[in-house]
Amino acid sequence: MRRGPGKWDYWRPELRSMSSTSEHIRRQLKVRRQQQRAVLATRWRCAQGGLEFEQLDTFYGAIRPYLCVAQFFGIMPLANIRSRDPQDVKFKVRSVGLAVTGLFLLLGGIKTLVGANILFTAGLNAKNMVGLVFLIVGLVNWLNFVGFARSWSHIMLPWSSLDILMLLPPYKRCKRSLRSKVNFTALCVGVLALGDHMLYYASGYCSYSTHILQCHTNHSRITFAFYLEKEFADIMFIMPCNIFTICYGFWINGALTFLWNFLDVFIVMTSIGLAQRFQQFADRVGALEGRQVPEALWYDIRRDHIRLCELASLVESSMSSIVFVSCANNVYVICNQALAIFTKLRHPINYVYFWYSLIFLLARTSLVFMTASKIHDAALLPLRSLYFVPRDGWSQEVQRFAYQLTSEFVGLSGYRLFCLTRRSLFGMLATLVTYELMLLQMDAKSHKGLRCV
Amino acid sequence: MRRGPGKWDYWRPELRSMSSTSEHIRRQLKVRRQQQRAVLATRWRCAQGGLEFEQLDTFYGAIRPYLCVAQFFGIMPLANIRSRDPQDVKFKVRSVGLAVTGLFLLLGGIKTLVGANILFTAGLNAKNMVGLVFLIVGLVNWLNFVGFARSWSHIMLPWSSLDILMLLPPYKRCKRSLRSKVNFTALCVGVLALGDHMLYYASGYCSYSTHILQCHTNHSRITFAFYLEKEFADIMFIMPCNIFTICYGFWINGALTFLWNFLDVFIVMTSIGLAQRFQQFADRVGALEGRQVPEALWYDIRRDHIRLCELASLVESSMSSIVFVSCANNVYVICNQALAIFTKLRHPINYVYFWYSLIFLLARTSLVFMTASKIHDAALLPLRSLYFVPRDGWSQEVQRFAYQLTSEFVGLSGYRLFCLTRRSLFGMLATLVTYELMLLQMDAKSHKGLRCV
Amino acid sequence: MRRGPGKWDYWRPELRSMSSTSEHIRRQLKVRRQQQRAVLATRWRCAQGGLEFEQLDTFYGAIRPYLCVAQFFGIMPLANIRSRDPQDVKFKVRSVGLAVTGLFLLLGGIKTLVGANILFTAGLNAKNMVGLVFLIVGLVNWLNFVGFARSWSHIMLPWSSLDILMLLPPYKRCKRSLRSKVNFTALCVGVLALGDHMLYYASGYCSYSTHILQCHTNHSRITFAFYLEKEFADIMFIMPCNIFTICYGFWINGALTFLWNFLDVFIVMTSIGLAQRFQQFADRVGALEGRQVPEALWYDIRRDHIRLCELASLVESSMSSIVFVSCANNVYVICNQALAIFTKLRHPINYVYFWYSLIFLLARTSLVFMTASKIHDAALLPLRSLYFVPRDGWSQEVQRFAYQLTSEFVGLSGYRLFCLTRRSLFGMLATLVTYELMLLQMDAKSHKGLRCV
Amino acid sequence: MRRGPGKWDYWRPELRSMSSTSEHIRRQLKVRRQQQRAVLATRWRCAQGGLEFEQLDTFYGAIRPYLCVAQFFGIMPLANIRSRDPQDVKFKVRSVGLAVTGLFLLLGGIKTLVGANILFTAGLNAKNMVGLVFLIVGLVNWLNFVGFARSWSHIMLPWSSLDILMLLPPYKRCKRSLRSKVNFTALCVGVLALGDHMLYYASGYCSYSTHILQCHTNHSRITFAFYLEKEFADIMFIMPCNIFTICYGFWINGALTFLWNFLDVFIVMTSIGLAQRFQQFADRVGALEGRQVPEALWYDIRRDHIRLCELASLVESSMSSIVFVSCANNVYVICNQALAIFTKLRHPINYVYFWYSLIFLLARTSLVFMTASKIHDAALLPLRSLYFVPRDGWSQEVQRFAYQLTSEFVGLSGYRLFCLTRRSLFGMLATLVTYELMLLQMDAKSHKGLRCV
Repeated sequence: MRRGPGKWDYWRPELRSMSSTSEHIRRQLKVRRQQQRAVLATRWRCAQGGLEFEQLDTFYGAIRPYLCVAQFFGIMPLANIRSRDPQDVKFKVRSVGLAVTGLFLLLGGIKTLVGANILFTAGLNAKNMVGLVFLIVGLVNWLNFVGFARSWSHIMLPWSSLDILMLLPPYKRCKRSLRSKVNFTALCVGVLALGDHMLYYASGYCSYSTHILQCHTNHSRITFAFYLEKEFADIMFIMPCNIFTICYGFWINGALTFLWNFLDVFIVMTSIGLAQRFQQFADRVGALEGRQVPEALWYDIRRDHIRLCELASLVESSMSSIVFVSCANNVYVICNQALAIFTKLRHPINYVYFWYSLIFLLARTSLVFMTASKIHDAALLPLRSLYFVPRDGWSQEVQRFAYQLTSEFVGLSGYRLFCLTRRSLFGMLATLVTYELMLLQMDAKSHKGLRCV
Repeated sequence: MRRGPGKWDYWRPELRSMSSTSEHIRRQLKVRRQQQRAVLATRWRCAQGGLEFEQLDTFYGAIRPYLCVAQFFGIMPLANIRSRDPQDVKFKVRSVGLAVTGLFLLLGGIKTLVGANILFTAGLNAKNMVGLVFLIVGLVNWLNFVGFARSWSHIMLPWSSLDILMLLPPYKRCKRSLRSKVNFTALCVGVLALGDHMLYYASGYCSYSTHILQCHTNHSRITFAFYLEKEFADIMFIMPCNIFTICYGFWINGALTFLWNFLDVFIVMTSIGLAQRFQQFADRVGALEGRQVPEALWYDIRRDHIRLCELASLVESSMSSIVFVSCANNVYVICNQALAIFTKLRHPINYVYFWYSLIFLLARTSLVFMTASKIHDAALLPLRSLYFVPRDGWSQEVQRFAYQLTSEFVGLSGYRLFCLTRRSLFGMLATLVTYELMLLQMDAKSHKGLRCV
Repeated sequence: MRRGPGKWDYWRPELRSMSSTSEHIRRQLKVRRQQQRAVLATRWRCAQGGLEFEQLDTFYGAIRPYLCVAQFFGIMPLANIRSRDPQDVKFKVRSVGLAVTGLFLLLGGIKTLVGANILFTAGLNAKNMVGLVFLIVGLVNWLNFVGFARSWSHIMLPWSSLDILMLLPPYKRCKRSLRSKVNFTALCVGVLALGDHMLYYASGYCSYSTHILQCHTNHSRITFAFYLEKEFADIMFIMPCNIFTICYGFWINGALTFLWNFLDVFIVMTSIGLAQRFQQFADRVGALEGRQVPEALWYDIRRDHIRLCELASLVESSMSSIVFVSCANNVYVICNQALAIFTKLRHPINYVYFWYSLIFLLARTSLVFMTASKIHDAALLPLRSLYFVPRDGWSQEVQRFAYQLTSEFVGLSGYRLFCLTRRSLFGMLATLVTYELMLLQMDAKSHKGLRCV
Repeated sequence: MRRGPGKWDYWRPELRSMSSTSEHIRRQLKVRRQQQRAVLATRWRCAQGGLEFEQLDTFYGAIRPYLCVAQFFGIMPLANIRSRDPQDVKFKVRSVGLAVTGLFLLLGGIKTLVGANILFTAGLNAKNMVGLVFLIVGLVNWLNFVGFARSWSHIMLPWSSLDILMLLPPYKRCKRSLRSKVNFTALCVGVLALGDHMLYYASGYCSYSTHILQCHTNHSRITFAFYLEKEFADIMFIMPCNIFTICYGFWINGALTFLWNFLDVFIVMTSIGLAQRFQQFADRVGALEGRQVPEALWYDIRRDHIRLCELASLVESSMSSIVFVSCANNVYVICNQALAIFTKLRHPINYVYFWYSLIFLLARTSLVFMTASKIHDAALLPLRSLYFVPRDGWSQEVQRFAYQLTSEFVGLSGYRLFCLTRRSLFGMLATLVTYELMLLQMDAKSHKGLRCV
């Protein structure tokens, strides 16, 4: 049987001769070739265009600073993360990053075991379970990021290659660079998260001092040091109480909070990166609106679309576990907070912290869903441009392109159990509201006896 | 690369020469050209047809009286709203309308702050929160309408242009004019809303008088003036109690109620306007059923459909915030009323007001959903007509038209989180019923002890 | 300015001449012609085939006996219902049927008012509301059936015409005739409903006698007559207690129960009738599997499919109100029964009645959904047959037919708020189960104190 | 107007001659022919390839050992199950297998009746209902498997025939054989289920002994024998207490547990079997990516796809009842366990058993859904390969194949009320979580009084 030009080898002679070898080997070679090709193409294009790779507005370039910061908290341990070339960055078992991660897992694990021990002896209930769940989810997240780091190089090479492809003509750059969008998002969430973390301690200290004032006689205990002693009780359980222990307590608490926020920010960043490319793609197709386009160009466009979709589904499958845990955890914490929405609190600062953290969490979760849904929205944009294809320009290639655009879901998902779309966000919010209404009603019931209406 | 005729410029030489300029400028000019074209076309057609623009059954003409009334309540501040030419009506920062809106926002804001202050000192719970939410939603609505007013001219120009296009042959007028439909709806809702508002005061006064009779000894306080003093307690909190203050209380209460009703009525009117055009379009396609239609005509029809869909999505994206707040608020109030469905009330008038306002609200919400869903229903109507296209008349254009009809959702939505369809309405009702059943069951539980079955 | 094949002049001379006859009149004539054609075709075909119309297995023939019975209860008042020719049966304002319906509406209305009066003075709650809802739903149903009777002749003429078409070759008859299926269903439901109705009285009498034995000293009141006096308390409220009043009580109770059951059975019958035709259609397409079929035959098949779909959507829109009320009422009663699922009852017969009526109701509701969903299932059957169309037989007509099969929903719905499909049934059941689980959990809570585990 | 190939005369002479052989007989012969063809093809292929049927990695070969084991528990009574030829294995009314099933049904029925009797006298509530439901579901499962055994030969013949077809070129074998996958799954679930069963007795004994220690004075009763006497109280109710009775108790308990686990494992196995074939099919299509493929080969591929889909829907409809009962029961038990999630238990072993069995159950249910969803996922895989079909290779056959891939749902379902997909699993989990949140909230309420926060 005669074999025509293959999927990827339409532009290189050496691959065409390779295709005579057996199918089995051909398949296995494919992955390796893909990587090589990405590297080659990157270098070749950069050389040709006279552009430095570092100056390009690639996704890797945009996210690199944040990955560097994450290393300090043992998140996503990658070797050579300081290199500007995505090909150097790989997951290595024997690396400093993984050692840091291991340290965090060990310390976090100990804290979790101590906390679990305290809880199980006291009796587990819905209320005191929250802290334990927070710790366990933290550990799971660290492990998830290790898993994601392992597939990092498999994702980044094709992605960088595609980035370079789409940063040169015929694609046009977006008005706002990827880097500025990512930085803006990270900055906003970062500042808000810092405020949240500080309010946590402030609110905790106020509650503590009032508690001492009312229930104990020894008022000399109302110092921040004593508060921290109570706050980090689980650590004090196995270590003596000194400045080092307290620092350690701050550090591990901070790391867990950073991890939680980083998780969401990372999903948002990835979504921005993917959505930007789909947007550029849509712009390119849009620029052809109403023009007479040769079928070969439509073929090129369609091929680029396939590459984009392949990248999107590669990212989707690699990030499934991260997305799943992030959403599950956020929903759990939101519901838990919603539980306490009618609880009387003592101090204004308690109210401030409660509402601030609830709204911050809701906003962050919505941000994750909304940004991720933009991938899907952007992926569907070219459809309308196809309506304007003139009558004699409507070829089979256009038809296949139109079919391709609608036949698949493009976006992020949690193990494909749920997709990050606006519809899912609405479903989640609706469930939350229904749940809250139930509480509202119960609250109304229990207040009934007291009213004089 | 040779560039053929563009999207819009395939019929005019001067535009075709324009297309030689750079793509970037071309894109930016497009929006301006579109507006100019709409203006030109409008004038030219009216002159040609010997018809006065005012006599046409346009959407702007139908909705204008209601926008004028709305100005008095600071809703949708537009300059030159009294003009019959939609091109004159624009949002201006320095205008009387915006000043009125600002006044309302100021007064409403003060009322809200005073109310919030009273509530937070007394302790916020599910029951007393309702009034505060009503005020806050009111403020948000005023702001939303300001936002919508800003994009008003961008919507009205293409809409009016399309209206004129579809009021002349080959499109046929609908039996009932747009104006009569809009007026009928506004009248019905208006009268019912007025009744609701009056019953509110009547019911409130009755409750007040009974309360005084039973809990207080000073029966001389049972006058309407004292009732109003209690009703407008939040205003009296910062202002002396006199006839002016009471009028102000009536006025701001009335404005908020008007705003709430206008919100829904406005969505309904817009839906009627869009649905009418889609209906006319479907009628035109239907008239071709079974006939031999040249491909060029199908092309024209398809192009009109694209224009209709573009208008619909322009309106959809501009009204997202209005639709979202309207639906969220309605659902909230309905659920809140449902909470009290088994509460014992003192007076028959309390029952009358309670059930009247609940049913009115349910009916209004359903009306919003049902009217909005008609856009979608009407947009799908031409599909069946395409079944009757004869065998030799089935060309590529028809196929593309059929594909176009089914590939997109046409209708209103709240940030695309939910669409205003019958299915959404059912989902909402089902959730409401489930919620009500829960209450029913709890009510049954609490009555258990008293029965002798 | 030169105007080419421009935007505004798409109606070209040849088309204008084509539509020289007024479109408006043409449209209005179409409906009348369609009816006449149906009548003519019916007579002509019967004459040609030498077959008597009465002997054909038409839907009208199958359902006629049940309509006759329904007349006695004032349901669906049609004149000349005893005629075997569907063209004679029409809704007439001045007819015996409508008078009977009016009588029922009057008597039912009085009963409802009396009952409502009693309830509102005693205080409405979730428990005692059931009886009132049952009465109101009954009245609504009578009115709904009057509404449906008005559109009866518009439905039956095309249906009968289609029936005749599909009872002659090339369509083959189904194994089991429509008549036998309808009779079987009606018999089963009828017998079970009769049992349910009898158990109602038996269970009520037992409860009554026990109640008297325990709460009263006057044991002489334990007779069936006294029970009936209590049972029909609302009638006794305005009428003296005698044998006539009791008969009247029995009669109106029976009529309401018959109406409720007839509602569901009627939907089931209609569904069977439609599904049978779609099944026959699928069989015909299936018989062409793998054969070389001329395009003209595909055209004929497609045209028959359009007729079937038109009939289905005509029935769907006419029956919307009936389907909606039926489902809403069934779900309400099921939920209400589920409420009492853990209530302790006194007598075994109470248990028997409770479970019998609950299971009967669940089965009937499921039957409605399952039979109705068969329309949709049968409508999709031809799709698979199209897979077997040989390569050179795959023409445009087949493609259009395939598209037509999947592009629309065929089936019954309640105002298109929900469709009668298996998926809806599952959604309903799932909600019911969730609700029941809630009760289960509350039941478990309240028993907690009593256990020794 | 001339009437061409008119509305009524669509069956033309030439078509009538085409179908001169009776359609009815032709249809009935088709099924028989299909079976014969399967047998012939199997033998012929095996002979040609020089392969023994037993050595092939067929689904029947993989599942046979488990069917043999199931015979001992009266599950799926098939005659000649020990034969390696799937054609020998049939359902026979007079067989040892059915006798064993009858015995189990009898014994299980007696146990159920005794249990029901005890329960109804004590009063049925949500808590003690669980055991009875377990028994009844067991009986239903036995009957379901008898029903499935009846259609076994109708499923296995086409399946085996397809297996053989897909184990020879041009299809390639998967890396991991079907047999190893099935064995791995069965082993894992089997070992875990055994652990669960043992923990059940251990936990029960511990609870029993504590109960005796605290509530009774006669501590001599704390032996395993006495525990069993209580555990099998329903059997002791009608039989004397001796070693035989206890063995019988163990045996019937074990059989029910085996049945419950086998049910899920059987669905998983079937899913693996189907998914494997769809995966192979996708691999074959994938190998053609980018190549020039003759239309005839596309036709062959499409025909194989039809056969695969037909097998899948045959299996789906036959297993509907099994899938439905399995899922319903699992969800019921999970919800029931979730009910007790905050109940205080006495012994660590009680906790271990409770959480072990809950997590095992959740994992098993998820396994069922995830494995079954793989069928659907694998069935959609070829779609992406079609994107790479070169421009001049895109023929009508490919288009039809693409349409065929997306037009139907492939997978398992419970009476098509719900499909075993990831989305359904998510819906189930979400409902469960909402339910659990409700409990959480109630638990929090009831603990409120005790806290000092």
